[in-house]
Amino acid sequence: ILTVDTTDSKQQVYLYNCEGVTVIVKGKFKSLILDKCTSCSVIFDTIISSTETVNCKKVKFQVNGICPAFTIDKTVNILIWLSKESLSVTNFTTSLSSEMNVSFPDGEDVKELPIPEQFVHKLVDGVVTSDVSDLYH
Amino acid sequence: ILTVDTTDSKQQVYLYNCEGVTVIVKGKFKSLILDKCTSCSVIFDTIISSTETVNCKKVKFQVNGICPAFTIDKTVNILIWLSKESLSVTNFTTSLSSEMNVSFPDGEDVKELPIPEQFVHKLVDGVVTSDVSDLYH
Repeated sequence: ILTVDTTDSKQQVYLYNCEGVTVIVKGKFKSLILDKCTSCSVIFDTIISSTETVNCKKVKFQVNGICPAFTIDKTVNILIWLSKESLSVTNFTTSLSSEMNVSFPDGEDVKELPIPEQFVHKLVDGVVTSDVSDLYH
Repeated sequence: ILTVDTTDSKQQVYLYNCEGVTVIVKGKFKSLILDKCTSCSVIFDTIISSTETVNCKKVKFQVNGICPAFTIDKTVNILIWLSKESLSVTNFTTSLSSEMNVSFPDGEDVKELPIPEQFVHKLVDGVVTSDVSDLYH
């Protein structure tokens, strides 16, 4: 377990090629990037910009404060625990990724939902329309 | 160039581990599967069930008749030419794939559109809602 104390909100945290590491980031900082990491967990307070995850496997995030955006690319197996404050402000941009789940407080309980990875597209009046697969309905 | 004549609508066409092959399939047949193919083209008449593409790179399809469904999984760079008849009946189910395009007759012209590969998800009232990325708007 590695603990990082951020001191300036312009700081960025970058993890590359890590395996089996747990990182706790304290304070408010600009952004977090995980590149080519396997079986890693990151617990953090508040991110101003975004969390980017690319080319990773089995990663977990725990947001104690707020993170407005997660970008997930070429990643398999990701679990994001959101705080109650972050719940309504966070969005997830995904591409080429699978086994994505988000966990969040739902009243007294914790709820976990999959983020869709399969989509159905049709041509309607010369335009491509896209919807999540029936798997998620 | 390989030409296949199908004689029974229950026949399936399966291509595995091919590179740089062009296949013309004549007649009406059940389904077409491309698995682990690179730089391949398939031109076919009518498929009753579906075309499945998995683990492929650089594949092209030309539908002369009708194909109701394309399933595209773990594939990079795919171009599908649809016939006018197939235009309103074809749907595309995609996962873990990128660089997907569909080409179709639009009046006298031919139009080409990307099939979205990036999506944005949000939590709204305890449910995950998904939409295509702003890239496609």
